[in-house]
Amino acid sequence: MTVYKAPVEDVTFLLDDVFQIDRYNNLPGFSDASADVRAAILDEAAKFAEKVLHPLNHSGDQEGCTRHDDGRVTTPAGFKDAFRQMADGGWLGLSGPAEFGGQGLPVTLSQTVNEFMISANMAFSMYGGLTMGAMAALLVHGSDQQKATFVPNMMTGKWAGTMNLTEPQCGTDLGLMRTKAVKQADGTYKISGTKIFISGGEQDLTENIVHLVLARIEGAPAGIKGVSLFVVPKRKVNADGSSGEANGVSCGSIEHKMGIHGNSTCVLNFDNAVGTLVGEENKGMQAMFVMMNEARLGVGVQGLAQSEVAYQNAVAYAKERLQGRALTGAQAKDKPADPIIVHPDIRRTLMSIRAFNEAARALVVWTALKSDVAHRSDDAKERQAADDHMGLLTPVVKGMLTDVGFANTVAAQQVYGGHGYIQETGVEQFVRDARIAMIYEGANGIQALDLVGRKLPKDGGRAMTAFFSEVTAFAKENGASEEMKAFVAPLSASLQHLQQATMWLMQNALAKPDNAGAASTDYLHLFGLVALAYMWARMAKTAQDKLAQGGDQPYLKTKLVTGKFFVERMLPETALRLARIQAGAATMMELPAEAF
Amino acid sequence: MTVYKAPVEDVTFLLDDVFQIDRYNNLPGFSDASADVRAAILDEAAKFAEKVLHPLNHSGDQEGCTRHDDGRVTTPAGFKDAFRQMADGGWLGLSGPAEFGGQGLPVTLSQTVNEFMISANMAFSMYGGLTMGAMAALLVHGSDQQKATFVPNMMTGKWAGTMNLTEPQCGTDLGLMRTKAVKQADGTYKISGTKIFISGGEQDLTENIVHLVLARIEGAPAGIKGVSLFVVPKRKVNADGSSGEANGVSCGSIEHKMGIHGNSTCVLNFDNAVGTLVGEENKGMQAMFVMMNEARLGVGVQGLAQSEVAYQNAVAYAKERLQGRALTGAQAKDKPADPIIVHPDIRRTLMSIRAFNEAARALVVWTALKSDVAHRSDDAKERQAADDHMGLLTPVVKGMLTDVGFANTVAAQQVYGGHGYIQETGVEQFVRDARIAMIYEGANGIQALDLVGRKLPKDGGRAMTAFFSEVTAFAKENGASEEMKAFVAPLSASLQHLQQATMWLMQNALAKPDNAGAASTDYLHLFGLVALAYMWARMAKTAQDKLAQGGDQPYLKTKLVTGKFFVERMLPETALRLARIQAGAATMMELPAEAF
Repeated sequence: MTVYKAPVEDVTFLLDDVFQIDRYNNLPGFSDASADVRAAILDEAAKFAEKVLHPLNHSGDQEGCTRHDDGRVTTPAGFKDAFRQMADGGWLGLSGPAEFGGQGLPVTLSQTVNEFMISANMAFSMYGGLTMGAMAALLVHGSDQQKATFVPNMMTGKWAGTMNLTEPQCGTDLGLMRTKAVKQADGTYKISGTKIFISGGEQDLTENIVHLVLARIEGAPAGIKGVSLFVVPKRKVNADGSSGEANGVSCGSIEHKMGIHGNSTCVLNFDNAVGTLVGEENKGMQAMFVMMNEARLGVGVQGLAQSEVAYQNAVAYAKERLQGRALTGAQAKDKPADPIIVHPDIRRTLMSIRAFNEAARALVVWTALKSDVAHRSDDAKERQAADDHMGLLTPVVKGMLTDVGFANTVAAQQVYGGHGYIQETGVEQFVRDARIAMIYEGANGIQALDLVGRKLPKDGGRAMTAFFSEVTAFAKENGASEEMKAFVAPLSASLQHLQQATMWLMQNALAKPDNAGAASTDYLHLFGLVALAYMWARMAKTAQDKLAQGGDQPYLKTKLVTGKFFVERMLPETALRLARIQAGAATMMELPAEAF
Repeated sequence: MTVYKAPVEDVTFLLDDVFQIDRYNNLPGFSDASADVRAAILDEAAKFAEKVLHPLNHSGDQEGCTRHDDGRVTTPAGFKDAFRQMADGGWLGLSGPAEFGGQGLPVTLSQTVNEFMISANMAFSMYGGLTMGAMAALLVHGSDQQKATFVPNMMTGKWAGTMNLTEPQCGTDLGLMRTKAVKQADGTYKISGTKIFISGGEQDLTENIVHLVLARIEGAPAGIKGVSLFVVPKRKVNADGSSGEANGVSCGSIEHKMGIHGNSTCVLNFDNAVGTLVGEENKGMQAMFVMMNEARLGVGVQGLAQSEVAYQNAVAYAKERLQGRALTGAQAKDKPADPIIVHPDIRRTLMSIRAFNEAARALVVWTALKSDVAHRSDDAKERQAADDHMGLLTPVVKGMLTDVGFANTVAAQQVYGGHGYIQETGVEQFVRDARIAMIYEGANGIQALDLVGRKLPKDGGRAMTAFFSEVTAFAKENGASEEMKAFVAPLSASLQHLQQATMWLMQNALAKPDNAGAASTDYLHLFGLVALAYMWARMAKTAQDKLAQGGDQPYLKTKLVTGKFFVERMLPETALRLARIQAGAATMMELPAEAF
């Protein structure tokens, strides 16, 4: 009932033309991802997403997960078989290291594939997404033995992975954590406590589950500095590497959620479960932070992916639904009414979503590319610059893409009128599923605070200075061209707003930190708008160059019109964001809590 | 698990102080609603909403409605008893005419009571809301016999009412209607066809249901000009006025919806059901339009009401949830962490919702007051001015209050972090319930088009001119006061934006109607912002006057801070809306439909 077609042409335009990733063939893995190989992979991924995952999306939502009395959890019909196909297709190891069974291809490529999977079936994609996240953490911080024990089995999807952070009394503030780890004579730890909101915490897809668990070692310092990371398999691992007897981990219940019903969100009870330390004692947060950038980028992709699939369905409905006549006179005279895509307000809705999606996709590719450079370059300076960029842009990608992505699913639903409110049409599921992405992996308010309080001032503002320089240089280089002016002039104006906001923070937030907190969400969106405008300017440049060389006329011209819509209609929001930031914190902090 | 406390103090401030409704004691019904009577009624309504309806909200959502094989529909446990209490309490007839058993009190009062009921339980409140809507239509357009037969039984809640407009192929475009009416020798009609999305179409609350049905009389002109309105009871009415045998109406199925699960949304099949004509043949739309203003105002109230209850719950959570420390240093040093209400981003969220709610409530009262004047004044000029106002503001109230009200439920949910995504905490229900209000009773895009295409140009722009004059006069009168400047200056600036936008429409939309369509939604929000700013200016004036007279200090000071937040942080959006409007339709209409 819903439709989905993976945007392969758009991804190819970004990888091949806008970012020309062949220029990075000096980095490990990139030359293996030649244009042909990329095309073949995207084609396969598209097929898998469209034909295997998408048909299970609505049924998975309707059926949901079931916890049985013995603590087992059954995922929706079809998920087990699809997970097997995903694992066998090598999708979990696309950008994993070859020595552990991965294919070593760029994250730039695997993030585009992720978008397809998430658009097709967000709840399903999370089982694999968390497994990839857990692998990433083990690869950076695990011991050789931990890597050898767990990673190859996760890369093939024989085992899955989870992340266990949240407890009833602690979400954002992990310093309040209570789960305990007691060191044993053999160097292992016994973990006890309750973790909540554990995605994929129990399921019937894999023979074992590798839980990464934050806990406090007996006697550790209070607060966040006493938290350590452990790996705790659901079933203990035998000496020969196979899954053995049950460890002390059980699923106490599964949550009834607004959406992502196909993913089992568990309360996990750890009762003297045996685990081993990952990295150093009391350095658990550092180990988690490593993986957070990529996990947050992945959640940003969820916002984009739901916005994309919602857009596609709204377009299909708008072309098919006959209602009223165009304001300029009947268009489909042979029909009882015109398709609603003739109405400007419907156009406005569709163009807004589309203009966001295409730039958001570019932003994901750009940021993922920096991630690859940060991890794979042999030039320390290049690595540092890429890492700066990745750190700075990650909260923006996570916060902006999920806030606007969710709002876009709501806008797409609106196109359907009353039919959008009915479960059978499927569009309301996109709204419910997309909603979680604004919350988990650091609620968006936390992303905004991370940006303003940590990433912006870090190293004397080095990352932000580099961003300003890059955009300014692009504007200087391209501003003279008559064709590019329509993009460069608004980009420069919006950049000025961002610079003014940054200056305001420097002048007002040091003495009064509440001014930073009060500005944070607006600053994140202001930054996001400028970043998207920069993406549009780069895409426009590429499109104009390709048009001049006789490229695919309709595709490239549509791209330019869509970009123009963005700078005309959506980018003016930067002035509003600036005005709000400059209003400061005084009024919002004035009332005592009792007045609320 | 959720909380709700009816905002009686706020309503009293509006009725007694800001709008001083005692000034309208010359209108029928107003002198019966003296300050004491109002206080007693609001108090009773608050108790009923808080103690009877609110406890059934979450359970009603979880249980939903059930259709049995024989077509009967069961509402959630407790609804039947609560409906009886509501009916016996006289709440359905609060502003109904005394000759049919109503109390004849002002709509201004009954709309504030409606807000309480909807905050407490939106799905439940719709059964009564539609009954009141159907009564209103019968009272204006029904024959004496129809009124006598149906209205008294509806006023006491013995029978309920519904509205039957939508069919599978026609929602907004009612000209595509297919339901047929065939005239019988006795002057009645036999109605056949299928209606969808009929709220309360079948239920177990009342012994009969009075369906108002739009249908096309055999041989009527094509399109909207051939649509007539009929009254079709579920059970035929005996000569003695009691409910008799079944009429040919049955519930084919109930919809599975995103929210308002406690309200049965039915597919109704009419199979030679006997009905009588309401008003004139082929004038069905006119009969419906009469009731639309009030129905739309009521849906606007739904947006406000869900925003209010979501706000209250977010506040309770923010005061109780301990997480992190204030940026300015620990506040609750005796606790492991500070309540999250200390964080500026949480404050920003709560203040934004609150600053909207309080002004939206004022806007509802102001508009309802105009409705009372329009219906009850014996001065034709006063009636006309009030009717102008009501017509102009209705789409704004409906569109703005439901768009922003919904967004506010989402923002309130965000305060909860992951706990907001879990059904048990109850806040996600507000999001799902509020969503429908943007869609039904004319989707918000239609409201925007109604405003820009119909209400604005009507009678040479008379209504808008009056609005401009009133706000300008207020600004002139109060702009000199030092204390009022903070409100009047931004109000005047935003009014200028609205005037510029109106001018732009006059210059650009006549020749190119797509420019009106492209501007419509932004224009509605721009207008809404100015109207809310005007409400804030009036409330600020009243608060300052009362403070000067030694009124309740904390309440009035909080009011002024909240208003300041609105003009500082929220009102600057008018510039963005103007910029979007001035961008015109060209870019959004440029692409061929195939390019989407």
